[in-house]
Amino acid sequence: MSDLPGEFSLIARHFRPLAGPGALALGDDAAVFAPPPGRELVVAADAIVAGVHFLPGDPPDLIGRKLLRTNLSDLAAMGATPLGYLMTVSVPRGTPDAWFAGFAAGLAADQAEFGIFLLGGDTTSTPGPVSLSLTIIGHVAPGAALRRGGARAGDGLWVSGSIGDGALGLLAARGEIADPDGTLAGRYRLPQPRLALGQAVAGIAHAGMDVSDGLVQDTGHLCRAGAVGAVIEAASVPLSPAARAADRLALCLTGGDDYELLLAVPPASAAALAAAAARCGIPLTRIGGFVAGPPGVSVRNADGQPIVLSKAGWSHFEAQ
Amino acid sequence: MSDLPGEFSLIARHFRPLAGPGALALGDDAAVFAPPPGRELVVAADAIVAGVHFLPGDPPDLIGRKLLRTNLSDLAAMGATPLGYLMTVSVPRGTPDAWFAGFAAGLAADQAEFGIFLLGGDTTSTPGPVSLSLTIIGHVAPGAALRRGGARAGDGLWVSGSIGDGALGLLAARGEIADPDGTLAGRYRLPQPRLALGQAVAGIAHAGMDVSDGLVQDTGHLCRAGAVGAVIEAASVPLSPAARAADRLALCLTGGDDYELLLAVPPASAAALAAAAARCGIPLTRIGGFVAGPPGVSVRNADGQPIVLSKAGWSHFEAQ
Repeated sequence: MSDLPGEFSLIARHFRPLAGPGALALGDDAAVFAPPPGRELVVAADAIVAGVHFLPGDPPDLIGRKLLRTNLSDLAAMGATPLGYLMTVSVPRGTPDAWFAGFAAGLAADQAEFGIFLLGGDTTSTPGPVSLSLTIIGHVAPGAALRRGGARAGDGLWVSGSIGDGALGLLAARGEIADPDGTLAGRYRLPQPRLALGQAVAGIAHAGMDVSDGLVQDTGHLCRAGAVGAVIEAASVPLSPAARAADRLALCLTGGDDYELLLAVPPASAAALAAAAARCGIPLTRIGGFVAGPPGVSVRNADGQPIVLSKAGWSHFEAQ
Repeated sequence: MSDLPGEFSLIARHFRPLAGPGALALGDDAAVFAPPPGRELVVAADAIVAGVHFLPGDPPDLIGRKLLRTNLSDLAAMGATPLGYLMTVSVPRGTPDAWFAGFAAGLAADQAEFGIFLLGGDTTSTPGPVSLSLTIIGHVAPGAALRRGGARAGDGLWVSGSIGDGALGLLAARGEIADPDGTLAGRYRLPQPRLALGQAVAGIAHAGMDVSDGLVQDTGHLCRAGAVGAVIEAASVPLSPAARAADRLALCLTGGDDYELLLAVPPASAAALAAAAARCGIPLTRIGGFVAGPPGVSVRNADGQPIVLSKAGWSHFEAQ
């Protein structure tokens, strides 16, 4: 009985080195850890599937990092500090050892970057495509989590970084648009969770979330949660030089995979917001505002005329 | 923008009613909850895939309940009290609404039975089979978790309930063996996590785990974790009347899906163990013991002769 079957050997080789304090070396039925005293826990889970959320040929290290980072972005959106994660990995039989090695190497790099550890999980086979699920655990001071509800008429609508690179990056990764220096594909494959910024603005913004399903659709979520309307001034939406060159404004406004923060901020807090952004080194741009009225988003051009979009955003369930 | 796309509508209809305190009605980027003061957290994650861990035609309510219960069994194995769970659901496009309704109804039934709530998750499409992942969160008193390591030579090897019904139940569910009253298939489809028993024995047993991958293989895990050997007396292994009638001892000893507790208990604690078992109303049977020597399991018949098994257990990654 001393021969470990393949599953256990695989876990020992590739995942045990990722295990942190409390994970019990992945050798027990569960991980045990003491939550930070006096803090609230923040937890989220996301699944990604080959052919739906990433390209089957994507480098496995980047798949691992994207899986982790999209979850870290959810913590950023709550103003939380990450602690660790659990992960389940379902792969076709015969997946080469090198795939696991690359996947784990990507996770290890991001664990070091974000100061987190693997707490547990499961590895199974599947007759279908690679399916990955990750649960992230973080913490905030009691009552300090940044929430989606809370936007008020008169608040400014602010967004971090630049919008549209992720959606354009998917096209670039597929070879459908030019991307001479790889900037766009890089943003699609390796999101930058805005953790420090989320923590810095949690006490300033009335409401916030991360932009993962498209700017317009996600603004709609803030509207519904706050029972307010919103206006987006399309000309104010920050675009990277690469996105400007691509000249696909509608896609930028509705594409997914931005992983920027979207915030409702009262005008009186604009200076505090700017100071927080400066401290974090991440630009924040006012792209519109919230208005009284039924929940809904209108997008206007530089002349104040409405821009009609055929699709508000991206649903991983409805559309590819 | 007020039309919710299908993913959000689906979540609102079927999963929001399952959300508990802290889940923020599944409307935020993450759940926020205060961990029970002074307790350690216990977390585990498992994935199940149609065609690997359950049959594609299984009733969706039982799939949901099995997913939850296999994770609850991991908490039982640690002596933990469950708190809540996160879940990701990847299903083929066109999965009927009735499937989701049944799946959620099963979860709702078990939430009521075990006093837990949904904290968050994700729903996506997949071009492959239904793939489900669940992260369970529970808690224990500091230092009180039951661990796999700790078995000592001289400890008795004890198991709860009966062994083999799950593995036989898979054959019964496939119509490969008789199961006149459905007992066996029922145990395959609806495991009984031994939560109360796990909590009751955590301070008594030297080591413990749940039997999910086969009695012999899982005993091997206790051996490796404790650096001891073990002897299983096959004639002592508790079999249900249905399993006795099936007369498939080797399968019972190596099949998976038992979700019983496997414990290393010093002889001096046998009375305390019996009292705990009686309080919980779950039988515990001594099926052998731990011995000095290299980690390994030998299985003996009633005459003390070794029984050679072609396969120690079940690995979800290696074999179906």
